[in-house]
Amino acid sequence: MAIGQYPDVDMRFEPPVQKVIDEFARLPGIGAKTAQRLAFHLMSLPRDAAERLGEAVLEMTEQVRNCSRCFNLTSQDLCSICSDTRRDHTLVCVVERPQDISVIERTNEFRGGYHVLGGALSPLRGIGPEQLRIPELERRMDTEGILELVMATNPTLEGDATALYLARVFKSRELRITRLASGLPVGGDLDYADEITLGRALAGRRQM
Amino acid sequence: MAIGQYPDVDMRFEPPVQKVIDEFARLPGIGAKTAQRLAFHLMSLPRDAAERLGEAVLEMTEQVRNCSRCFNLTSQDLCSICSDTRRDHTLVCVVERPQDISVIERTNEFRGGYHVLGGALSPLRGIGPEQLRIPELERRMDTEGILELVMATNPTLEGDATALYLARVFKSRELRITRLASGLPVGGDLDYADEITLGRALAGRRQM
Repeated sequence: MAIGQYPDVDMRFEPPVQKVIDEFARLPGIGAKTAQRLAFHLMSLPRDAAERLGEAVLEMTEQVRNCSRCFNLTSQDLCSICSDTRRDHTLVCVVERPQDISVIERTNEFRGGYHVLGGALSPLRGIGPEQLRIPELERRMDTEGILELVMATNPTLEGDATALYLARVFKSRELRITRLASGLPVGGDLDYADEITLGRALAGRRQM
Repeated sequence: MAIGQYPDVDMRFEPPVQKVIDEFARLPGIGAKTAQRLAFHLMSLPRDAAERLGEAVLEMTEQVRNCSRCFNLTSQDLCSICSDTRRDHTLVCVVERPQDISVIERTNEFRGGYHVLGGALSPLRGIGPEQLRIPELERRMDTEGILELVMATNPTLEGDATALYLARVFKSRELRITRLASGLPVGGDLDYADEITLGRALAGRRQM
């Protein structure tokens, strides 16, 4: 670097700070500016408060893995749901991601098991059946005496396509395959419903 | 826990995951929902990618400290600005936070040193002169032969009050004390300027 020149603008901060900024900026929904703000915020905390975040992340990556049966997150070999004998494991709810399980659990309406696919089919993003945990689901169907699969993939194009694909794959088996109902959200307003949701609510209307 | 009861809703996730969520949620601008999304995102990454974030944070807390002279962030005893002999260290720019230094550096208009106060005076939040690095600044004034202090605290109530307070404290010294100009942002539109900014632009008008 010639005398009088300014240092490279890409390396604006102390390297260890820049590294934290870069890692934060990789997270979804966090831009360069927010990442900067977070890193500097950590540096403004007492050292042990900042360390706690780093340690928590390392501990999580070390201790938490996928349940060997349903691929939920767990610190054990089997997750707390799979190892709960009071639940009905002949009923399996198929979800895209581990966090979907906690959403369904909070309804207190489901007492079966789960299977986490790890995503949804998406030809555009190069996600085919072999990128999802479909072979693992087939293996479970062969061995676990599952009687019903509840397709709880997201009500999106990709989630619907995934549910449809799985329904076809398992058609030949003696099995009930169901899909979460689509329709108006409870407490919603007809005025604010989009046409597709309203159309599905009509198609799925039930006798009173 | 009685049979049939559901586990405590507060402990919805595996403890190591919950811990990461809690730590993320402590960061400014990150709510409970975003914290959850970030933690699950980390768990969806290959293990070494998630570890990188944790390690970067720990490395930063370990290696980066405050410059012993100006309190900028640095991995050394003196920061790169304080140890740069080509800069004019008789000119010191007083800022609230370390990140303000990089903003000023990017203008390429300032070739002096800095002093990081660590905040601004705020009676409401209990931040008085003794919570800021004002004694350290006085010590520098005694020993370093500083000729000009540029007050670059934020153009807010608190930043203004801090600049004013410092100007009074150092009034008796042989010293030039200046303040960043307030006025219309370059490229801005009169229509969009607030009254206070416009008022300051008028009061600070310069002969052409």
